[in-house]
Amino acid sequence: MARLIRVMRVHVLRLGHRPARDKRVTTHLMLAARAFGASGATYTGMRDSSLEESVLQVASDWGGDFNLEYAERWNSVVDGWRGVGRIVHLTMYGMPILDVLGEIREIDSDLLIVVGGVKVPGEVYDVADWNVAVTSQPHSEVSALAVFLHELFGGRKLGAVFGDARLRIVPQTRGKFVEGRFNDGLKI
Amino acid sequence: MARLIRVMRVHVLRLGHRPARDKRVTTHLMLAARAFGASGATYTGMRDSSLEESVLQVASDWGGDFNLEYAERWNSVVDGWRGVGRIVHLTMYGMPILDVLGEIREIDSDLLIVVGGVKVPGEVYDVADWNVAVTSQPHSEVSALAVFLHELFGGRKLGAVFGDARLRIVPQTRGKFVEGRFNDGLKI
Repeated sequence: MARLIRVMRVHVLRLGHRPARDKRVTTHLMLAARAFGASGATYTGMRDSSLEESVLQVASDWGGDFNLEYAERWNSVVDGWRGVGRIVHLTMYGMPILDVLGEIREIDSDLLIVVGGVKVPGEVYDVADWNVAVTSQPHSEVSALAVFLHELFGGRKLGAVFGDARLRIVPQTRGKFVEGRFNDGLKI
Repeated sequence: MARLIRVMRVHVLRLGHRPARDKRVTTHLMLAARAFGASGATYTGMRDSSLEESVLQVASDWGGDFNLEYAERWNSVVDGWRGVGRIVHLTMYGMPILDVLGEIREIDSDLLIVVGGVKVPGEVYDVADWNVAVTSQPHSEVSALAVFLHELFGGRKLGAVFGDARLRIVPQTRGKFVEGRFNDGLKI
Protein backbone atom coordinates (compact mmCIF):
# COMPACT_ATOMS: atom_id res chain seq x y z
CA MET A 1 0.00 0.00 0.00
CA ALA A 2 2.88 2.37 0.73
CA ARG A 3 3.87 2.11 -2.94
CA LEU A 4 0.42 3.16 -4.10
CA ILE A 5 0.32 6.17 -1.79
CA ARG A 6 3.72 7.28 -2.99
CA VAL A 7 2.79 7.43 -6.65
CA MET A 8 -0.64 8.97 -6.17
CA ARG A 9 -0.90 12.32 -7.94
CA VAL A 10 -3.36 14.75 -6.42
CA HIS A 11 -5.03 17.62 -8.24
CA VAL A 12 -7.38 20.15 -6.63
CA LEU A 13 -10.46 21.63 -8.30
CA ARG A 14 -11.66 24.86 -6.66
CA LEU A 15 -15.21 25.81 -7.67
CA GLY A 16 -16.66 29.27 -8.24
CA HIS A 17 -13.85 31.70 -7.51
CA ARG A 18 -15.01 35.33 -7.11
CA PRO A 19 -12.01 37.66 -7.27
CA ALA A 20 -13.57 40.46 -5.22
CA ARG A 21 -14.50 38.28 -2.25
CA ASP A 22 -12.32 35.20 -2.50
CA LYS A 23 -8.91 36.39 -3.62
CA ARG A 24 -7.10 35.75 -0.37
CA VAL A 25 -8.98 32.58 0.55
CA THR A 26 -8.40 31.04 -2.87
CA THR A 27 -4.74 32.05 -2.77
CA HIS A 28 -4.40 30.43 0.65
CA LEU A 29 -6.20 27.36 -0.64
CA MET A 30 -3.80 26.97 -3.56
CA LEU A 31 -0.75 27.48 -1.36
CA ALA A 32 -2.05 24.93 1.13
CA ALA A 33 -2.65 22.52 -1.75
CA ARG A 34 0.97 22.94 -2.86
CA ALA A 35 2.49 22.81 0.64
CA PHE A 36 0.58 19.65 1.59
CA GLY A 37 1.38 17.67 -1.54
CA ALA A 38 -0.99 18.40 -4.42
CA SER A 39 0.70 18.53 -7.83
CA GLY A 40 -1.55 21.25 -9.15
CA ALA A 41 -4.96 22.84 -9.15
CA THR A 42 -7.69 24.13 -11.43
CA TYR A 43 -10.18 26.82 -10.52
CA THR A 44 -13.51 27.82 -12.01
CA GLY A 45 -15.57 30.97 -11.57
CA MET A 46 -14.07 34.26 -12.63
CA ARG A 47 -10.58 34.27 -14.06
CA ASP A 48 -8.16 36.16 -11.82
CA SER A 49 -4.70 36.92 -13.18
CA SER A 50 -3.53 38.36 -9.87
CA LEU A 51 -4.41 35.08 -8.11
CA GLU A 52 -2.48 33.15 -10.74
CA GLU A 53 0.54 35.44 -10.47
CA SER A 54 0.64 35.16 -6.67
CA VAL A 55 0.50 31.39 -6.67
CA LEU A 56 2.97 30.90 -9.51
CA GLN A 57 5.38 33.37 -7.90
CA VAL A 58 5.38 31.29 -4.71
CA ALA A 59 5.88 28.12 -6.72
CA SER A 60 8.76 29.74 -8.58
CA ASP A 61 10.44 31.04 -5.42
CA TRP A 62 9.87 28.06 -3.18
CA GLY A 63 10.31 25.23 -5.66
CA GLY A 64 8.47 22.19 -6.91
CA ASP A 65 6.31 22.11 -10.01
CA PHE A 66 2.83 23.05 -8.81
CA ASN A 67 0.70 24.11 -11.76
CA LEU A 68 -2.41 26.28 -11.69
CA GLU A 69 -5.05 26.20 -14.41
CA TYR A 70 -8.34 27.90 -15.10
CA ALA A 71 -11.44 26.19 -16.52
CA GLU A 72 -14.74 27.79 -17.43
CA ARG A 73 -16.81 24.77 -16.48
CA TRP A 74 -16.23 22.35 -13.62
CA ASN A 75 -17.98 19.60 -15.56
CA SER A 76 -15.29 19.55 -18.21
CA VAL A 77 -12.59 19.05 -15.57
CA VAL A 78 -14.53 16.25 -13.91
CA ASP A 79 -15.35 14.61 -17.25
CA GLY A 80 -11.68 14.71 -18.22
CA TRP A 81 -10.77 13.10 -14.93
CA ARG A 82 -13.00 10.06 -15.32
CA GLY A 83 -11.03 7.05 -16.37
CA VAL A 84 -7.85 8.79 -15.23
CA GLY A 85 -8.56 8.86 -11.54
CA ARG A 86 -11.02 9.01 -8.69
CA ILE A 87 -12.82 11.99 -7.21
CA VAL A 88 -13.13 13.21 -3.63
CA HIS A 89 -15.44 16.10 -2.79
CA LEU A 90 -14.72 17.83 0.50
CA THR A 91 -17.94 18.82 2.25
CA MET A 92 -18.97 19.10 5.88
CA TYR A 93 -22.03 17.01 4.95
CA GLY A 94 -20.00 14.01 3.81
CA MET A 95 -18.67 10.91 5.52
CA PRO A 96 -16.09 11.33 8.29
CA ILE A 97 -12.58 11.30 6.85
CA LEU A 98 -11.41 8.50 9.11
CA ASP A 99 -14.23 6.27 7.87
CA VAL A 100 -13.16 6.52 4.22
CA LEU A 101 -9.47 7.34 4.24
CA GLY A 102 -8.41 3.69 4.15
CA GLU A 103 -10.39 3.10 0.95
CA ILE A 104 -9.10 6.26 -0.67
CA ARG A 105 -5.51 5.42 0.11
CA GLU A 106 -5.87 2.05 -1.59
CA ILE A 107 -6.76 3.37 -5.04
CA ASP A 108 -4.10 2.89 -7.66
CA SER A 109 -4.91 6.01 -9.66
CA ASP A 110 -4.70 9.76 -9.34
CA LEU A 111 -7.06 11.72 -7.15
CA LEU A 112 -9.07 14.86 -7.91
CA ILE A 113 -10.13 16.75 -4.80
CA VAL A 114 -13.10 19.05 -5.41
CA VAL A 115 -13.37 21.99 -3.03
CA GLY A 116 -16.53 24.04 -3.01
CA GLY A 117 -17.02 27.73 -3.41
CA VAL A 118 -20.03 29.81 -2.63
CA LYS A 119 -22.64 27.40 -3.93
CA VAL A 120 -21.85 23.82 -4.85
CA PRO A 121 -24.06 22.29 -7.57
CA GLY A 122 -25.88 19.20 -6.38
CA GLU A 123 -24.33 17.14 -9.19
CA VAL A 124 -20.93 17.47 -7.52
CA TYR A 125 -22.16 15.25 -4.69
CA ASP A 126 -23.20 12.66 -7.26
CA VAL A 127 -20.08 12.57 -9.43
CA ALA A 128 -17.77 12.27 -6.42
CA ASP A 129 -16.57 8.79 -5.52
CA TRP A 130 -16.41 10.02 -1.93
CA ASN A 131 -18.01 13.00 -0.23
CA VAL A 132 -15.67 13.53 2.70
CA ALA A 133 -16.13 15.60 5.85
CA VAL A 134 -13.10 16.92 7.73
CA THR A 135 -15.14 17.35 10.90
CA SER A 136 -18.90 17.84 10.53
CA GLN A 137 -18.51 21.47 11.59
CA PRO A 138 -18.34 24.62 9.49
CA HIS A 139 -14.79 25.96 9.18
CA SER A 140 -12.85 26.60 5.99
CA GLU A 141 -12.02 24.95 2.70
CA VAL A 142 -8.39 25.86 3.45
CA SER A 143 -8.28 23.92 6.72
CA ALA A 144 -10.38 21.08 5.32
CA LEU A 145 -8.04 20.62 2.35
CA ALA A 146 -4.88 20.88 4.43
CA VAL A 147 -5.99 18.36 7.04
CA PHE A 148 -7.30 16.00 4.35
CA LEU A 149 -3.98 16.07 2.47
CA HIS A 150 -2.03 15.83 5.72
CA GLU A 151 -3.92 12.66 6.59
CA LEU A 152 -3.89 11.30 3.03
CA PHE A 153 -0.10 11.45 2.95
CA GLY A 154 0.24 10.15 6.49
CA GLY A 155 1.84 13.37 7.74
CA ARG A 156 4.84 13.03 5.45
CA LYS A 157 4.38 16.41 3.76
CA LEU A 158 5.27 18.30 6.95
CA GLY A 159 8.90 17.81 6.06
CA ALA A 160 8.60 17.90 2.28
CA VAL A 161 11.52 19.35 0.33
CA PHE A 162 10.78 21.12 -2.94
CA GLY A 163 13.21 20.86 -5.81
CA ASP A 164 14.63 23.90 -7.63
CA ALA A 165 13.76 26.31 -4.85
CA ARG A 166 15.22 29.82 -4.99
CA LEU A 167 14.36 30.33 -1.33
CA ARG A 168 14.68 27.89 1.55
CA ILE A 169 13.97 28.37 5.24
CA VAL A 170 16.44 27.16 7.80
CA PRO A 171 14.27 26.51 10.89
CA GLN A 172 15.08 28.66 13.92
CA THR A 173 13.95 28.69 17.53
CA ARG A 174 13.80 32.52 17.29
CA GLY A 175 13.72 34.86 14.32
CA LYS A 176 13.99 34.18 10.59
CA PHE A 177 16.67 32.64 8.45
CA VAL A 178 16.16 32.25 4.71
CA GLU A 179 18.72 30.99 2.25
CA GLY A 180 18.44 32.36 -1.26
CA ARG A 181 19.80 30.86 -4.43
CA PHE A 182 20.36 33.38 -7.17
CA ASN A 183 22.01 33.34 -10.56
CA ASP A 184 25.46 33.50 -9.07
CA GLY A 185 25.02 30.73 -6.56
CA LEU A 186 23.85 30.28 -3.03
CA LYS A 187 23.60 33.37 -0.85
CA ILE A 188 22.33 34.03 2.63
CA MET B 1 0.33 12.39 29.50
CA ALA B 2 -3.11 11.73 28.06
CA ARG B 3 -4.58 13.39 31.14
CA LEU B 4 -2.61 16.58 30.55
CA ILE B 5 -3.62 16.80 26.92
CA ARG B 6 -7.25 16.35 27.83
CA VAL B 7 -7.40 19.30 30.21
CA MET B 8 -5.28 21.69 28.12
CA ARG B 9 -7.26 24.79 27.20
CA VAL B 10 -6.20 26.45 23.97
CA HIS B 11 -6.78 30.09 23.07
CA VAL B 12 -5.85 31.68 19.74
CA LEU B 13 -4.49 35.22 19.31
CA ARG B 14 -4.86 36.58 15.77
CA LEU B 15 -2.69 39.63 15.09
CA GLY B 16 -3.47 42.66 12.96
CA HIS B 17 -6.91 42.02 11.48
CA ARG B 18 -7.77 44.34 8.58
CA PRO B 19 -11.51 44.15 7.86
CA ALA B 20 -11.27 45.17 4.22
CA ARG B 21 -8.69 42.56 3.25
CA ASP B 22 -8.89 39.88 5.90
CA LYS B 23 -12.55 39.45 6.70
CA ARG B 24 -12.96 36.03 5.15
CA VAL B 25 -9.54 34.70 6.10
CA THR B 26 -9.96 35.76 9.74
CA THR B 27 -13.46 34.30 9.82
CA HIS B 28 -12.11 31.02 8.43
CA LEU B 29 -9.29 31.13 10.97
CA MET B 30 -11.70 31.54 13.88
CA LEU B 31 -13.98 28.77 12.63
CA ALA B 32 -11.01 26.45 12.17
CA ALA B 33 -9.88 27.31 15.70
CA ARG B 34 -13.30 26.34 17.03
CA ALA B 35 -13.69 23.19 14.91
CA PHE B 36 -10.24 21.87 15.83
CA GLY B 37 -10.53 22.38 19.56
CA ALA B 38 -9.63 25.90 20.67
CA SER B 39 -11.85 27.27 23.46
CA GLY B 40 -11.75 30.81 22.18
CA ALA B 41 -9.81 33.50 20.38
CA THR B 42 -8.79 37.14 20.61
CA TYR B 43 -7.97 39.34 17.66
CA THR B 44 -6.11 42.62 17.35
CA GLY B 45 -6.00 45.15 14.52
CA MET B 46 -9.22 46.85 13.51
CA ARG B 47 -12.38 45.92 15.33
CA ASP B 48 -14.88 44.20 13.02
CA SER B 49 -18.41 43.68 14.28
CA SER B 50 -19.39 41.69 11.20
CA LEU B 51 -16.55 39.23 11.84
CA GLU B 52 -17.68 38.84 15.42
CA GLU B 53 -21.29 38.31 14.43
CA SER B 54 -20.39 35.65 11.84
CA VAL B 55 -18.27 33.66 14.25
CA LEU B 56 -20.66 33.92 17.19
CA GLN B 57 -23.58 32.95 14.96
CA VAL B 58 -21.76 29.76 13.97
CA ALA B 59 -20.93 29.04 17.59
CA SER B 60 -24.56 29.60 18.56
CA ASP B 61 -25.93 27.38 15.78
CA TRP B 62 -23.38 24.61 15.96
CA GLY B 63 -22.78 24.43 19.69
CA GLY B 64 -19.94 24.55 22.15
CA ASP B 65 -18.83 27.65 23.99
CA PHE B 66 -16.22 29.24 21.74
CA ASN B 67 -15.70 32.86 22.74
CA LEU B 68 -14.28 35.66 20.59
CA GLU B 69 -12.70 38.78 22.03
CA TYR B 70 -11.07 41.92 20.70
CA ALA B 71 -7.93 43.55 22.13
CA GLU B 72 -6.28 46.77 21.07
CA ARG B 73 -2.76 45.60 21.85
CA TRP B 74 -1.32 42.12 21.47
CA ASN B 75 1.14 42.81 24.27
CA SER B 76 -1.63 43.05 26.84
CA VAL B 77 -2.98 39.64 25.82
CA VAL B 78 0.46 38.07 25.99
CA ASP B 79 1.26 39.77 29.31
CA GLY B 80 -2.01 38.50 30.77
CA TRP B 81 -1.15 35.01 29.60
CA ARG B 82 2.21 34.78 31.35
CA GLY B 83 1.97 32.75 34.50
CA VAL B 84 -1.30 31.28 33.27
CA GLY B 85 0.05 29.33 30.35
CA ARG B 86 2.63 28.88 27.62
CA ILE B 87 2.83 30.49 24.21
CA VAL B 88 3.24 29.02 20.73
CA HIS B 89 3.78 31.29 17.74
CA LEU B 90 2.98 29.72 14.39
CA THR B 91 5.48 30.85 11.76
CA MET B 92 6.97 29.21 8.70
CA TYR B 93 10.38 30.28 10.04
CA GLY B 94 10.05 28.30 13.27
CA MET B 95 11.01 24.79 14.31
CA PRO B 96 9.30 21.86 12.58
CA ILE B 97 6.13 20.91 14.43
CA LEU B 98 7.16 17.29 14.85
CA ASP B 99 10.38 18.38 16.57
CA VAL B 100 8.58 20.30 19.32
CA LEU B 101 5.12 18.76 19.60
CA GLY B 102 6.19 16.27 22.25
CA GLU B 103 7.40 19.08 24.53
CA ILE B 104 4.30 21.16 23.97
CA ARG B 105 1.99 18.26 24.75
CA GLU B 106 3.70 17.73 28.08
CA ILE B 107 2.97 21.15 29.53
CA ASP B 108 0.47 21.16 32.37
CA SER B 109 -0.96 24.60 31.64
CA ASP B 110 -3.08 26.33 29.03
CA LEU B 111 -1.72 27.25 25.63
CA LEU B 112 -1.93 30.52 23.71
CA ILE B 113 -1.37 30.12 19.98
CA VAL B 114 -0.31 33.35 18.27
CA VAL B 115 -1.12 33.56 14.57
CA GLY B 116 0.37 36.35 12.55
CA GLY B 117 -1.28 38.90 10.37
CA VAL B 118 0.26 41.11 7.74
CA LYS B 119 3.39 42.04 9.68
CA VAL B 120 4.43 40.26 12.83
CA PRO B 121 6.44 42.36 15.33
CA GLY B 122 9.86 40.87 16.06
CA GLU B 123 9.04 40.73 19.78
CA VAL B 124 6.47 38.01 19.09
CA TYR B 125 9.29 35.63 18.18
CA ASP B 126 10.95 36.43 21.51
CA VAL B 127 7.96 36.12 23.84
CA ALA B 128 6.90 32.78 22.36
CA ASP B 129 7.98 29.65 24.21
CA TRP B 130 7.99 27.94 20.84
CA ASN B 131 8.08 29.31 17.31
CA VAL B 132 6.54 26.47 15.34
CA ALA B 133 6.51 25.80 11.59
CA VAL B 134 3.74 23.70 10.05
CA THR B 135 5.89 22.96 7.02
CA SER B 136 8.62 25.48 6.13
CA GLN B 137 6.61 26.57 3.11
CA PRO B 138 4.32 29.56 2.64
CA HIS B 139 0.66 28.62 2.79
CA SER B 140 -1.98 29.99 5.15
CA GLU B 141 -2.53 30.76 8.80
CA VAL B 142 -5.80 28.86 8.47
CA SER B 143 -4.14 25.62 7.35
CA ALA B 144 -1.22 26.08 9.74
CA LEU B 145 -3.54 26.49 12.73
CA ALA B 146 -5.80 23.61 11.73
CA VAL B 147 -2.98 21.14 11.22
CA PHE B 148 -1.25 22.29 14.41
CA LEU B 149 -4.41 21.77 16.48
CA HIS B 150 -5.15 18.50 14.70
CA GLU B 151 -1.72 17.20 15.68
CA LEU B 152 -1.82 18.74 19.16
CA PHE B 153 -5.01 16.86 19.98
CA GLY B 154 -3.82 13.68 18.31
CA GLY B 155 -6.55 13.79 15.66
CA ARG B 156 -9.32 13.48 18.23
CA LYS B 157 -11.12 16.67 17.18
CA LEU B 158 -12.15 15.17 13.84
CA GLY B 159 -15.05 13.53 15.59
CA ALA B 160 -15.71 16.20 18.24
CA VAL B 161 -19.30 16.68 19.35
CA PHE B 162 -20.36 20.17 20.45
CA GLY B 163 -22.87 20.58 23.25
CA ASP B 164 -26.03 22.67 22.95
CA ALA B 165 -25.98 22.66 19.15
CA ARG B 166 -29.07 23.89 17.33
CA LEU B 167 -27.84 22.27 14.11
CA ARG B 168 -26.16 18.91 13.66
CA ILE B 169 -25.01 17.17 10.50
CA VAL B 170 -25.82 13.52 9.95
CA PRO B 171 -23.01 12.33 7.64
CA GLN B 172 -24.15 11.11 4.23
CA THR B 173 -22.42 9.40 1.33
CA ARG B 174 -24.42 11.72 -1.00
CA GLY B 175 -26.24 14.96 -0.37
CA LYS B 176 -26.93 16.87 2.83
CA PHE B 177 -28.78 15.97 6.00
CA VAL B 178 -28.97 18.47 8.85
CA GLU B 179 -30.93 18.00 12.05
CA GLY B 180 -32.21 21.19 13.66
CA ARG B 181 -33.23 21.69 17.24
CA PHE B 182 -35.60 24.61 17.72
CA ASN B 183 -37.69 25.92 20.55
CA ASP B 184 -40.28 23.24 20.11
CA GLY B 185 -37.91 20.32 20.01
CA LEU B 186 -35.96 18.38 17.45
CA LYS B 187 -36.88 18.79 13.81
CA ILE B 188 -35.41 17.58 10.59
